[in-house]
Amino acid sequence: MESEDATRNWGNRKLKNMGTMFSPKTVALIGASHDPGKPGFHVLKSLIDGEFSGKVFPINPKRGVIMGLEVHTSLKDVPDQVDLAVIIIPALRVLDAIKDCIGTGVKGIVMITGGFKEVGNENGAHLQEQIADLANGAGIPIIGPNTPGILNLGIGLNASFTPAFSAAKKGNVALISQSGGVAHLIGYMAMRNNVGLGKIMGLGNRCNIDFADALDFLMQDADTQVIALYVEGIDNPRQLIETAQRYRGEKPVVVLKSGSAAQSNEASLSHTGTLTGSHEIYAAGFRQAGMLCVNSVEELVDAVKILDAAPPWEGGANTAIVSGQAGPAIVACDALERNGLAAMPFSKSLQNRINDILPPLTMRSNPVDLGPWWYDLELFKNILKVIGEDNDIAAILIIIVLGEANSFFVEGISAMLSDLSKQKPVVGCFVFPSQGWDKAVAAIEDASAFVSYPTPERAVGALANLSLAKKMKDPPPEGAVLEYSL
Amino acid sequence: MESEDATRNWGNRKLKNMGTMFSPKTVALIGASHDPGKPGFHVLKSLIDGEFSGKVFPINPKRGVIMGLEVHTSLKDVPDQVDLAVIIIPALRVLDAIKDCIGTGVKGIVMITGGFKEVGNENGAHLQEQIADLANGAGIPIIGPNTPGILNLGIGLNASFTPAFSAAKKGNVALISQSGGVAHLIGYMAMRNNVGLGKIMGLGNRCNIDFADALDFLMQDADTQVIALYVEGIDNPRQLIETAQRYRGEKPVVVLKSGSAAQSNEASLSHTGTLTGSHEIYAAGFRQAGMLCVNSVEELVDAVKILDAAPPWEGGANTAIVSGQAGPAIVACDALERNGLAAMPFSKSLQNRINDILPPLTMRSNPVDLGPWWYDLELFKNILKVIGEDNDIAAILIIIVLGEANSFFVEGISAMLSDLSKQKPVVGCFVFPSQGWDKAVAAIEDASAFVSYPTPERAVGALANLSLAKKMKDPPPEGAVLEYSL
Repeated sequence: MESEDATRNWGNRKLKNMGTMFSPKTVALIGASHDPGKPGFHVLKSLIDGEFSGKVFPINPKRGVIMGLEVHTSLKDVPDQVDLAVIIIPALRVLDAIKDCIGTGVKGIVMITGGFKEVGNENGAHLQEQIADLANGAGIPIIGPNTPGILNLGIGLNASFTPAFSAAKKGNVALISQSGGVAHLIGYMAMRNNVGLGKIMGLGNRCNIDFADALDFLMQDADTQVIALYVEGIDNPRQLIETAQRYRGEKPVVVLKSGSAAQSNEASLSHTGTLTGSHEIYAAGFRQAGMLCVNSVEELVDAVKILDAAPPWEGGANTAIVSGQAGPAIVACDALERNGLAAMPFSKSLQNRINDILPPLTMRSNPVDLGPWWYDLELFKNILKVIGEDNDIAAILIIIVLGEANSFFVEGISAMLSDLSKQKPVVGCFVFPSQGWDKAVAAIEDASAFVSYPTPERAVGALANLSLAKKMKDPPPEGAVLEYSL
Repeated sequence: MESEDATRNWGNRKLKNMGTMFSPKTVALIGASHDPGKPGFHVLKSLIDGEFSGKVFPINPKRGVIMGLEVHTSLKDVPDQVDLAVIIIPALRVLDAIKDCIGTGVKGIVMITGGFKEVGNENGAHLQEQIADLANGAGIPIIGPNTPGILNLGIGLNASFTPAFSAAKKGNVALISQSGGVAHLIGYMAMRNNVGLGKIMGLGNRCNIDFADALDFLMQDADTQVIALYVEGIDNPRQLIETAQRYRGEKPVVVLKSGSAAQSNEASLSHTGTLTGSHEIYAAGFRQAGMLCVNSVEELVDAVKILDAAPPWEGGANTAIVSGQAGPAIVACDALERNGLAAMPFSKSLQNRINDILPPLTMRSNPVDLGPWWYDLELFKNILKVIGEDNDIAAILIIIVLGEANSFFVEGISAMLSDLSKQKPVVGCFVFPSQGWDKAVAAIEDASAFVSYPTPERAVGALANLSLAKKMKDPPPEGAVLEYSL
């Protein structure tokens, strides 16, 4: 049993060393390979293809040159002090590599190698414990084993076996995923939806870095604004929940928790070595600690996108819909109500201002439908302006179906959206037929706090999660019946 | 009051003439324009840019040549018999145009012009009634007014103000939308998700073609396999529900009904001239008549995609998951259970066959995780083969995260999926980082009954709707408590 002091010291060293391993000056890849059939090839490619400006040292007993870099036979031969070691050699040789890391003063380890606790036999679990003991003694955080790796896109560091991740948009969303597959699923979906990513880590078997440690680190990380978690099962939910509670209100934490199905539990045990646990109880604990629980990968990606970009939700449930077409606005109205928000009637003064702008041949209440004036950009902007100035309106949803006849709209509205989206959350549902338009909309997103979604329902879902995140900042009221107790 | 015989005769003529207007040899555009600021320009562009092989006659009192076509001053000057007239002139001049259509024997009219019942004044409603009376007397179906138009992609006919629709993939999904905006929303989403579209119609104010007529027509249309409906409010829900009941089990009908929110009702009145009505009661009636009710545009598009492509659901709830990665498979397990399906344990004989193929270092039960063999295409195919042959498995969900290391997978699995997807529903969640892969996956879809979705939850949602569509074929059991009665 460690003393409290020892635990705190180890905790502090772990955090400090995590800082170094995510912003290393030097990276060694133990198990670099020139064979595209091996993951050691792809990790090296990731490290080199990205914009990482630090030094990369491939390690392999066979020496030679891979991708233009001299190969060293062991960590001890590397001339520089190595900050981060990525290990991708067979499980049975890992223990020696760990000892080399400790001997040469490595600050952090990413262990991609699998075949430990998740295999389900005693040898694997025992080996993992041995490694943890060694690393803990030396104060070295190990991410993994059984992880795809880590990324810090802010400095172009891609220490994963997936070079494609380097193409992600740089941003302030961090991802902690228990599963490598789901890290890819979420990461790829984020890339396809123009979400700005920062630090990504696959926790895998959580040798000595668990969710609580990762959350602790990211809460203190200046480059992280929003934290996404994918959780299957955790050995110590209390630790994660306590950590989340400690930082409540500082940064939004969005959680996708799997394992509600009976079969999921068994599958998870053989996946990353942990039962999924009592799903409902965990979810209740997460919510009480201020974490935002979502129900799908898509909802998670949509939520972190708005949480990263938009100003926080202020005020009530009232959302203004301004639409070029009535039908999609009606669909959005329904979705708002289903999600606890509403397109409420405008105040008399706001209604008067809108009536001055928009001729009566349209829906001028909330939702506003421009009707025959859908192609009139100035009119559109004037309406947005007066709604933006109204304090009763918590957020604005802009819906427009785009085609050749109004293709000027996206560029024309760009500057206005940049201003408007600073004042309050502004979400778009810009509907267009081909991927050719994606870039134009992404350009507005990149230059502003505006975010767009492909359907009214997804736009509203994101707004609802933004509003929920605001509510989650406050602890449950005193005397509230709690479903989970620490 | 019409006699029953007269109603039936009119009904028959209407159906026959709808057939002609969707497959016309000649189309006149009354209100063609050379001005890109006017819809009459864009409709002409739609008619010309598509692959429509019939003749197109622009009509405009100003004569001249537009887009290389001679302009006629009136319908009466057109040398050929006109099958379909598209009207896009101001409301006040429409009555004369209708009379010209009747006088020259036009078979069907698409009235894009707005400004009738939806405007909310008596004049508009009265004018619409006059037009309906004239058209009914002549047996001419009118789609609209206040519609974006109609399409029959099978013959390259794009009689809408949206040229972009011509780029849609040709297929057997038909869409009837009350709202033009939502027709675009659904149509564009279908295009972006590789759904094959056939006939599209925006009903608008439903002068004399309402949902029941359109459904009747599409149920008898050999090129239509799946029918999607977007309904805001209908004057005569009983007629639609009776029509759906009459054709129950013949073709799946998927409905998105809006108007659950209080504000939606008022908005809809000013949109297409009808209150949304009692949302819950309509929805209950739709379900009882065997229509599949969905909750979002995305769910609708996902549902019609699988309903069009895959063989019908047979057997129980048991779905096999075969995955290259465990995490996404666990997410899918949860989603199956939430949707009334399940990844149940394999039968002993199937489990034995899988154990012969897959080494024990993986999850070999349902879900199957290939673990370290994720890159082994032959092994993947062998597992799919034995699962495909098992009669206890109703459907197969294949999940794979793609990257450089297994980029061969998509092409390598293509031929096998073509066979497998004929035997039972096979759905993919092929996860990849960039739009570059979209085409490769779409190519498999185009050549088989396989369909892919971007997340496990959406893939499972589509499977659930396929299974539900099978159940909807049967009428409610005798003695069942019905929420809606005709």
